[in-house]
Amino acid sequence: MVSKTQIVALFLCFLTSTSSATYGRKPRPRRPCKELVFYFHDVLFKGNNYHNATSAIVGSPQWGNKTAMAVPFNYGDLVVFDDPITLDNNLHSPPVGRAQGMYFYDQKNTYNAWLGFSFLFNSTKYVGTLNFAGADPLLNKTRDISVIGGTGDFFMARGVATLMTDAFEGDVYFRLRVDINLYECW
Amino acid sequence: MVSKTQIVALFLCFLTSTSSATYGRKPRPRRPCKELVFYFHDVLFKGNNYHNATSAIVGSPQWGNKTAMAVPFNYGDLVVFDDPITLDNNLHSPPVGRAQGMYFYDQKNTYNAWLGFSFLFNSTKYVGTLNFAGADPLLNKTRDISVIGGTGDFFMARGVATLMTDAFEGDVYFRLRVDINLYECW
Amino acid sequence: MVSKTQIVALFLCFLTSTSSATYGRKPRPRRPCKELVFYFHDVLFKGNNYHNATSAIVGSPQWGNKTAMAVPFNYGDLVVFDDPITLDNNLHSPPVGRAQGMYFYDQKNTYNAWLGFSFLFNSTKYVGTLNFAGADPLLNKTRDISVIGGTGDFFMARGVATLMTDAFEGDVYFRLRVDINLYECW
Repeated sequence: MVSKTQIVALFLCFLTSTSSATYGRKPRPRRPCKELVFYFHDVLFKGNNYHNATSAIVGSPQWGNKTAMAVPFNYGDLVVFDDPITLDNNLHSPPVGRAQGMYFYDQKNTYNAWLGFSFLFNSTKYVGTLNFAGADPLLNKTRDISVIGGTGDFFMARGVATLMTDAFEGDVYFRLRVDINLYECW
Repeated sequence: MVSKTQIVALFLCFLTSTSSATYGRKPRPRRPCKELVFYFHDVLFKGNNYHNATSAIVGSPQWGNKTAMAVPFNYGDLVVFDDPITLDNNLHSPPVGRAQGMYFYDQKNTYNAWLGFSFLFNSTKYVGTLNFAGADPLLNKTRDISVIGGTGDFFMARGVATLMTDAFEGDVYFRLRVDINLYECW
Repeated sequence: MVSKTQIVALFLCFLTSTSSATYGRKPRPRRPCKELVFYFHDVLFKGNNYHNATSAIVGSPQWGNKTAMAVPFNYGDLVVFDDPITLDNNLHSPPVGRAQGMYFYDQKNTYNAWLGFSFLFNSTKYVGTLNFAGADPLLNKTRDISVIGGTGDFFMARGVATLMTDAFEGDVYFRLRVDINLYECW
């Protein structure tokens, strides 16, 4: 004999299973499984500051060079960097990791960059890496890029990172605040 | 009393749940959750076309330079670009977004490139970005690259994009058709 | 009438469904769905070995050039490569695919690189590509990078690849062993 309750229960169960089975097709909840906030600090090599510099131009357009940003809009400059990551916006705070990778300016009529980089952690709190890629239209207050993978404590992570320019001092120093929201955690 | 129907229903329900629980291990359906087709248009800077150009060589090998593609096979040239995206194959159609990033030619005995770039949309139809990476053996009729992430309307997207060379005019202009199939939509 | 067994079965079923529905929030099993081991071989162009070389410097810092690694620590050199992939550690074994992309050295006080590249397969065994990105602190015995996507036989793959330096001969030749573990297979 099948009671009403049983039918309802089975139906609910089936519904839930179905929605799982079509995973990838239906909207998923957008609550992050992990939230992190960091700052990183970039000091560009300008010809006479090798010891303080954390980044260097390694590609430039026909009209550029390796010790000054190209005019206009840094267009065509490709920079590799190894920047300290801190928990607050102070360049001199103890770094909790390194931001390593590249950015290049790819637009001739405004400031716009593209980023490919990693966060490397090796501390008591985190051991592992997060990998990022995406466009950085840097005059926007916030810019979203993708967390495309992770290793160690961030094994197989995916998410979205929101970049905000926290300081910008001429061509030499800038500081980004990065709000990392992971939506896939393993 | 347990009826046959109930047992079958429970069993089916259990089966479905199990297949969801092992998600990531079992084949998943390959129907896209979103399909998009775009064209993008690249006009390379060649020394005398700065105003029309949408891309520029910023890295070149020892035997190359910044105003002409390296011989042979453009090998060693790294190009940054900010290309208009259109809905049809007409360079002069109103752009619906920008394709921004880089490509570089990495093979010395044939035409082959590697791409890292984003599509940026900010229109009534779409607001957000899609991020791409992959190899582009450009003499093949079709080439598949990865959609490695997305933001905004394409939040957390993953998929495969198929590139087709729709036009190729000397070293100066090429047009790619991109069929984007997303298989993860949130 | 509802038997105990039925209640337990329904409850189990519900539990399983629920855990699937919150997918992305709960720990997932870390058993790979596919494991692969390859070697790839990089012979850098040094000015006089064009025919043997599989890679070339295309970006360098102000103090560098295109035919020798920058001093110190190759810092600022950006290299594009098209390297043979083999099943064992012999450079002269028949290649089973190509590793194509770029690496650049981004740290001024130690050897550290960042990689963006693809594996391209077109053999009886595999047809398709795997795309990778991540940091390579190359003095570490093992380094984990992300498999950020795949196409063909590796459609929509994600995972972690562990790099090991298997040989290092001056600036000219290095060989990496790559243990690929995919955790998302479609």
